[in-house]
Amino acid sequence: MKRVVSDITKTAGIFILLFVPACLLAEDGYDLWLRYKIVNDAGRLAHYRQTVTGININAASPTLLAAKEELEKGLNGLLGKKLPEHNLLQNGSVMAVKAAASDIVSRVISKELLASSGKEGFIIRSAVVRNKRIIIITGNTDISVLYGVFHFLRILQTQQSLADLAIQSSPSLQLRLLNHWDNLDRHVERGYAGFSIWNWHTLPDYRDPRYKDYARANASVGINGVSLTNVNANAMVLTRPYLEKVAALAAIFRPYGIRVYLTARFSAPIEIGKLSTADPLNDSVQHWWSNKAKEIYSLIPDFGGFLVKANSEGQPGPQNYGRNHADGANLLADAVAPYQGIVMWRAFVYSQQSNDRFKQAYEEFKPLDGQFRKNVLVQVKNGPIDFQPREPFSPLFGAMEKTPLMMEFQLTQEYLGQGTHLVFEAPMFKEVLQADTYVKGKGATVAKVVDGSLYNHSLNGMAGVANIGNDINWTGHLFGQANWYTLGRLAWNYELSSEQIADEWIRQTFNNKAFLVSTVKKIMLSSHEAMVSYMTPLGLHHIMGNGHHYGPAPWSDNLPRPDWNPVYYHRADSAGIGFDRTSTGSNALAQYSAEVRHRYEDPGDCDEKYLLWFHHVSWKHIMKSGRTLWEELCYKYYSGVEQARLMQQQWNQLENDVDKERFEHLRMLLAIQVKEAIWWRNACLLYFQGFSKMPIPSAYEQPDKTLEYYKNLRFPYAPGN
Amino acid sequence: MKRVVSDITKTAGIFILLFVPACLLAEDGYDLWLRYKIVNDAGRLAHYRQTVTGININAASPTLLAAKEELEKGLNGLLGKKLPEHNLLQNGSVMAVKAAASDIVSRVISKELLASSGKEGFIIRSAVVRNKRIIIITGNTDISVLYGVFHFLRILQTQQSLADLAIQSSPSLQLRLLNHWDNLDRHVERGYAGFSIWNWHTLPDYRDPRYKDYARANASVGINGVSLTNVNANAMVLTRPYLEKVAALAAIFRPYGIRVYLTARFSAPIEIGKLSTADPLNDSVQHWWSNKAKEIYSLIPDFGGFLVKANSEGQPGPQNYGRNHADGANLLADAVAPYQGIVMWRAFVYSQQSNDRFKQAYEEFKPLDGQFRKNVLVQVKNGPIDFQPREPFSPLFGAMEKTPLMMEFQLTQEYLGQGTHLVFEAPMFKEVLQADTYVKGKGATVAKVVDGSLYNHSLNGMAGVANIGNDINWTGHLFGQANWYTLGRLAWNYELSSEQIADEWIRQTFNNKAFLVSTVKKIMLSSHEAMVSYMTPLGLHHIMGNGHHYGPAPWSDNLPRPDWNPVYYHRADSAGIGFDRTSTGSNALAQYSAEVRHRYEDPGDCDEKYLLWFHHVSWKHIMKSGRTLWEELCYKYYSGVEQARLMQQQWNQLENDVDKERFEHLRMLLAIQVKEAIWWRNACLLYFQGFSKMPIPSAYEQPDKTLEYYKNLRFPYAPGN
Repeated sequence: MKRVVSDITKTAGIFILLFVPACLLAEDGYDLWLRYKIVNDAGRLAHYRQTVTGININAASPTLLAAKEELEKGLNGLLGKKLPEHNLLQNGSVMAVKAAASDIVSRVISKELLASSGKEGFIIRSAVVRNKRIIIITGNTDISVLYGVFHFLRILQTQQSLADLAIQSSPSLQLRLLNHWDNLDRHVERGYAGFSIWNWHTLPDYRDPRYKDYARANASVGINGVSLTNVNANAMVLTRPYLEKVAALAAIFRPYGIRVYLTARFSAPIEIGKLSTADPLNDSVQHWWSNKAKEIYSLIPDFGGFLVKANSEGQPGPQNYGRNHADGANLLADAVAPYQGIVMWRAFVYSQQSNDRFKQAYEEFKPLDGQFRKNVLVQVKNGPIDFQPREPFSPLFGAMEKTPLMMEFQLTQEYLGQGTHLVFEAPMFKEVLQADTYVKGKGATVAKVVDGSLYNHSLNGMAGVANIGNDINWTGHLFGQANWYTLGRLAWNYELSSEQIADEWIRQTFNNKAFLVSTVKKIMLSSHEAMVSYMTPLGLHHIMGNGHHYGPAPWSDNLPRPDWNPVYYHRADSAGIGFDRTSTGSNALAQYSAEVRHRYEDPGDCDEKYLLWFHHVSWKHIMKSGRTLWEELCYKYYSGVEQARLMQQQWNQLENDVDKERFEHLRMLLAIQVKEAIWWRNACLLYFQGFSKMPIPSAYEQPDKTLEYYKNLRFPYAPGN
Repeated sequence: MKRVVSDITKTAGIFILLFVPACLLAEDGYDLWLRYKIVNDAGRLAHYRQTVTGININAASPTLLAAKEELEKGLNGLLGKKLPEHNLLQNGSVMAVKAAASDIVSRVISKELLASSGKEGFIIRSAVVRNKRIIIITGNTDISVLYGVFHFLRILQTQQSLADLAIQSSPSLQLRLLNHWDNLDRHVERGYAGFSIWNWHTLPDYRDPRYKDYARANASVGINGVSLTNVNANAMVLTRPYLEKVAALAAIFRPYGIRVYLTARFSAPIEIGKLSTADPLNDSVQHWWSNKAKEIYSLIPDFGGFLVKANSEGQPGPQNYGRNHADGANLLADAVAPYQGIVMWRAFVYSQQSNDRFKQAYEEFKPLDGQFRKNVLVQVKNGPIDFQPREPFSPLFGAMEKTPLMMEFQLTQEYLGQGTHLVFEAPMFKEVLQADTYVKGKGATVAKVVDGSLYNHSLNGMAGVANIGNDINWTGHLFGQANWYTLGRLAWNYELSSEQIADEWIRQTFNNKAFLVSTVKKIMLSSHEAMVSYMTPLGLHHIMGNGHHYGPAPWSDNLPRPDWNPVYYHRADSAGIGFDRTSTGSNALAQYSAEVRHRYEDPGDCDEKYLLWFHHVSWKHIMKSGRTLWEELCYKYYSGVEQARLMQQQWNQLENDVDKERFEHLRMLLAIQVKEAIWWRNACLLYFQGFSKMPIPSAYEQPDKTLEYYKNLRFPYAPGN
């Protein structure tokens, strides 16, 4: 023992073996996918230690300092020893440097490759320079270097080879944002992970170390912007005391390449400016916003711009003054344009004038195409209703040729099981991005609309409504982290497959053991379809509980607006179920291109996943399986529950493969998920049975509660509401 | 290196050296004072390793399992190695066992000593048994053993000697409670540490690991009960779904000797029982509570009982039906008596009928002395107003001979700087406990009232309004933990000095380095008086901002009840300042015994700390220092700020003595504290100057803002409101 103790001494040049058994360190989820545990494969560890012997990076800017810190933290953890700095290159140096700051880079990397990397892309290259085998991490800017460092560390965390690296990666999209729906009182709308991480009261002077770790996590997946406040906006965030708090956050994020954005309450000129109007065409209103922008940019020179929800669900907007969305957006766009700011104007609107909420965003926005300033994007939810478990893509994608459209996904699981369901969203996002709009022939995918390539827009982007809160593990349900991770990875490269994203996340978040990786991957990749099956199969949508949106309430019909009520969406009656959106119904399908319309308009060959989105179908309609619609509905709901049980069983096999804490966390949550899946199944089938007048096939376990029981459940304190 | 690696292998019987440098592990405050870091003094470590070589404990109950887990966790961390189990005693065995379960114990420990240890007291004894040097941790019950284990680990954490241990310790008080003011929506009233740790929505099925660590922390300082919900009660917690959630928490706490209590909304029979009345003398109301108790105890057999706020600040109560507090308390007491439950009925009342709020609790409760059931305690705030930075002790202490009085302290710093001020409360609590009521001659201290010894009450206790929330470090401000720690230690033994409590806490929370311990101790021990000086010196009280109670607002006079307004309390006018509570004023002093009254009734020799509590004093009154009252006021405010600056400077010296994370945490918070101290000083003096018409002495740094500036500050989202 004494010999061991005396060996473990730190002297110049001697590597220290820091033996830190993973079991001692609590896996509370705080470290997300940046855990940097010592590589647990002896062969890989040896390869890494041989290939990487020191760090060469000049922390000449805050971003490069961040890169250096990350490289040290990552490599020291992964390699299990403190790597020295290599001021002179040696065998095994990892050199992280901006291209213009190093002539070595220009010798190794071609000008063309660098030019094609743009402002954020990075290059990682194994090279022999002056007979030294080194690894170069580079790009055109400091932030490229930081992104390259994160990618490099991901290679080690996922135990890939470091031999002959030749990586070039640039982001698909320019704007890669999180949208927090955080209120100033720290309540998070549709939040299931505790409360807002922004502690406004103690900002700007108290800067919680979480903010830096938040920035690191985002930078690790290339997220480069965050809108801090709820789209149901509060003008107070635009007042000076709050702007100073925002500036403090911006300063923490800036080295990580992250800009801050704020939601702009359209009536702010009245509420805080004490003007009598907020009419976008009014001079003093324009001056007010112009001065406000000046004030903001004096505090935050790289402020990103505004995100706006207007004339939607009670939010004020230009229509209050007889103006249109373009007038409103342009007002703000002009205010921030001198500072290269942008406006993201949300298309989530549904006024009273349509016979189908599905159609309203398109009806309000398409006529405005081309009327927006060039620094405006219209931000569109992936589907035409509201983040349902499955939605057809919004018909606005491809319909507005002259306007850049920004994709809005929802990471927080408002309709996808909230805080208690494991649902990996990548397959759902991919389904949308890969959907073909056919607006310019085949191949005009939603992704090509969003990345601007279809209609040649350089301003482009994607946003995810955040699922982050002040819970220790950031997302409440541990697997919520995977959706945060996914948003970044897809916004960087939407060609990545769900499987690859899951694979990366699992290896970094848990470990690289083959059985664990394959089992968790199965769980994740099956989770979305399972959830659709036990909640809203066959194209059902919007049948959740009022207000809190927790649990099923397909019977609900008492809210003031018809299109807030589940009955509006499923339209169950004695004849059948589903919403006719063909030309015999609301004709929402007409908003799509002809090819898309044709795919869905015939109930006989409509993809059954969307059947009830577009058709009111007889209970006796024969499905492709040969079952009647009613039987198929039962089959789907019951299958969904079985899939949830399978997920639970698969997880329970992993007791020896993951740490106790996270094993228990998932064990408890998956048990809740199965219970809630059964609740959805029973409540929905018992209710719909009242219309189908057909029994739940007796081979299935029958519901052990009554419809009345389910109807009487109340959750006055369900979170996020 | 290879040799080192091969040495670090785990084989049966070989101790493993787990080298875990503290610097690698984030000091985020989560582990509170139970960090169990390897002992950093080589001599002490050697002594411990020689003296403690293994653990002998039979985990024959959940409590003993908890004790075993803690002993292992603690010793393995502190000694830096995994200790083996000693099934047979050896030299160095630590034997933790209930007395009745071990004949060794009866050989070593006398019957008398065991008998005097009661149900919770523990004994720790070094002994030689069969020629083996062992340490025995014992007591009459499993929970005594657990308490003994925590004390034992504290000895090592504070680096005391393990030689010749002969410790016996029993608690001073029977009930040692935390009172959470947590709402069901997770907002915490007067909470500055995030939001409620109780995640009701996912209980009972999701049991957050924090609950267990919460239980450990409480058990480590002997806290044996927790009231989960806000005294501004919500009847819903008494409904079945919530009782099941409460039962889940109770199950986690039970092994740690912690019972759960709930706040009872007096109108619950109406709100959830659908009765038409809540009259305590009504049969159906009595039946309702009786059935409710039966339901609770069927789920939670050791449910502690109810905590009640009634007919106070809008809460319903017996007076709504023309009944009195005793009627109300007895209603509930009868309901829980069959199950050995208790009722803690709060005396925090102030109806409209008095000329001085100070007097009202006494006026309402003293006449009821002797009318309460024997399982009722009247819970009394330490002072007669409301948890001010300094209050004279409540005149109820000693005034109710026939009724057990429970002390209610406030840990959460509602009036003591909220989330941003370092204030160690032990000196303040001690000041109250040591105060002599003189109701039965000299020595009739408040402590003797509270521990029941003055009037022979076996039912006795102390409660602290919790400062705990879902922030990672539990209390927001790291030093809030010290106040949680203090409540437990004082409730266990109120004779402990503030210095000893601080010493223990510092050594366990930070480290045992002499410079750090002495410096942090200075900071802590000076903090309360500093805060009194920069907020409310010389007996000023209740001059804070409306609603949120954040910051100063001595000018405030616009709330509907006069005794909600600061002006009511300081009564500043051209003649002077302060509240005359002598016979020429409200005569509140008459509520005390003659000796106490005499000590305060003469402004010439009244302890100046309380001067303005009891007297309206001329601005020109000459103080003991020779300064006028106005000058003394300035002197106090300015000294307070200087003391805060000194605390800040003292902390800033510790950069090399504490981890970076907590150094920064305190650095930022102390800077805020100084800023806020200046704010208090300036706002109060600028305002009072309007009455004194005298200048702030020019030698002092003059306020750099105007009174108008301070009056116009608004904090619509200050936490805890």
